[in-house]
Amino acid sequence: MTRTGEMTQPDEMARPGVAPRQLPVGVSTRVRVPASSANLGPGFDCLGIALGIYDEVIVETIDSGVVLDVEGEGSANVPRDDSHLVVRALRRGLAHAGVSAPGLKLRCVNTIPHSRGLGSSAAAAVSGLAAASGLVRAAGFGAGLSDAELVQLSGEFEGHPDNAAASVLGSAVVTWTESADGVDSYHAHRLAVHPDVCATVFVPDTESSTSFTRGLLPDSVPREDAIFNLSRAALAVVALTSDPSNLMAASADRLHQPYRASAMLPTSTLVAELRARGHAATVSGAGPTVLVLGTAPVPADIRVLAQGHGFETHSVAIAGGVDITAG
Amino acid sequence: MTRTGEMTQPDEMARPGVAPRQLPVGVSTRVRVPASSANLGPGFDCLGIALGIYDEVIVETIDSGVVLDVEGEGSANVPRDDSHLVVRALRRGLAHAGVSAPGLKLRCVNTIPHSRGLGSSAAAAVSGLAAASGLVRAAGFGAGLSDAELVQLSGEFEGHPDNAAASVLGSAVVTWTESADGVDSYHAHRLAVHPDVCATVFVPDTESSTSFTRGLLPDSVPREDAIFNLSRAALAVVALTSDPSNLMAASADRLHQPYRASAMLPTSTLVAELRARGHAATVSGAGPTVLVLGTAPVPADIRVLAQGHGFETHSVAIAGGVDITAG
Repeated sequence: MTRTGEMTQPDEMARPGVAPRQLPVGVSTRVRVPASSANLGPGFDCLGIALGIYDEVIVETIDSGVVLDVEGEGSANVPRDDSHLVVRALRRGLAHAGVSAPGLKLRCVNTIPHSRGLGSSAAAAVSGLAAASGLVRAAGFGAGLSDAELVQLSGEFEGHPDNAAASVLGSAVVTWTESADGVDSYHAHRLAVHPDVCATVFVPDTESSTSFTRGLLPDSVPREDAIFNLSRAALAVVALTSDPSNLMAASADRLHQPYRASAMLPTSTLVAELRARGHAATVSGAGPTVLVLGTAPVPADIRVLAQGHGFETHSVAIAGGVDITAG
Repeated sequence: MTRTGEMTQPDEMARPGVAPRQLPVGVSTRVRVPASSANLGPGFDCLGIALGIYDEVIVETIDSGVVLDVEGEGSANVPRDDSHLVVRALRRGLAHAGVSAPGLKLRCVNTIPHSRGLGSSAAAAVSGLAAASGLVRAAGFGAGLSDAELVQLSGEFEGHPDNAAASVLGSAVVTWTESADGVDSYHAHRLAVHPDVCATVFVPDTESSTSFTRGLLPDSVPREDAIFNLSRAALAVVALTSDPSNLMAASADRLHQPYRASAMLPTSTLVAELRARGHAATVSGAGPTVLVLGTAPVPADIRVLAQGHGFETHSVAIAGGVDITAG
């Protein structure tokens, strides 16, 4: 646990002309936010699904400063000061609501693995923003942030909204970005996932850097490959919501996985072996985790196969969206 | 009406080892097939919708030869012999079913405009194949061709299945192609279109050549544009089936319309003006027809606007699939 100096609130951008109201001391909230898997094969930067692995944040307003306690995944590495992503997102959310805090005490209990392609940084941004919303509500200062505001603000932290929108809304999402006058607005539509669909993640020990793997993608792609993915991305919505028998065809991709395959050989090998056995496997986000969507849990021999490549197999629920409750 | 010589049946490819059974003289069927609009903006070569403009074909087996009577659209130009697309498709369908015909008398009543981006050639292929299926059934030779066979065989005539699958299955479709060992198999999933969705087509006097306009497309496209279309193609499935309020966002495209805009200026101008007024306008297939999908018929001032650019406005039903009845 680390205590830093007075809050300087660098991320606060209060609404012009409105003086922020200060939260009283002793207001608290608790937020639980799911992990997410992005892309789902063809839907690069536009399809995501929320998975039942959760980070939890408990926040309380205190007299001054920031007290930060981090347990679980990432606790050895994440910063304990104002630069912590949850703290930055919390401040951004408070500022958006026209509210300031005297001081903040946060307890983060993380179970989403970091740098594995399971949306941990998007979940951190969402948890901070949602915590701000929870504090605003708990103080009786209004309704807090809407889902659309949470999608927009968390998307701004990420630069695209696929993981974050899945963590906000839960279930599966289609996301898109509209740009006008140099401003990006992020949008998401929640899909009602067919009750037969179940998810399995295969998580390796190794980490991956999204910024590094993004650099492996070419600036232009063959038109035929774009058309290939278009049809599968459209089909993915069908497969997720109404006809899971199409999950194999709907999870094929030519636009990102082939370019990153050699940079994460165990992952691409496992994806290929799973697909050869009829499992709809894709790289989860930028990897190295592998996601399988199907209509039944994967059998034991698949767990053994994955273990042989250094991956741990976890059946995970398809999760609901971020949950905000009284602290 | 033109009579050609004996049928040489060049397109027949009977199943190996099975001698074709010959249909008796006097067997007849009637087929009604809808027009279609492909792409719907973002879904290049993979989204299509069936529209309530119909071609009809009445076929009867006769002693010998081919007698062909064509009325309506294209009647001045289409060939009256074995090279007629309906005749070629009919023969292909019979061969697929392991059946031959002594001679054929066809009456085609066409109302789908030709070379306008409304899928008239796909409809012709579907009508011939469906007529073959109808003859097989009428003769008591079996169930004829399944929908999957109609999609596959009509897709082979087109090289992609978006228009043809819409004409076969009706409603809206997501289509995709799987290639293995040099063989393309064509697949389609029928979408249940939301009952509020209605379609308007704006048809100009001018024609367009799909092969010419296809040549205007580059072999590679910016990755950002591919991602843009991916999100909109996925969203199009949502907008068509469950949330038509997203039709504007779901009909945006960067992969084909911009490249062909200058080759069909009245069309691209009309699309732009309609979209600026909040109507989800796209180029229908390769153009020059413009399609608008919305939740209400377009108002009178839009009809006047379109007329000013040389387009006739038609409200059209979203159609069911090909209809095969006794002749």
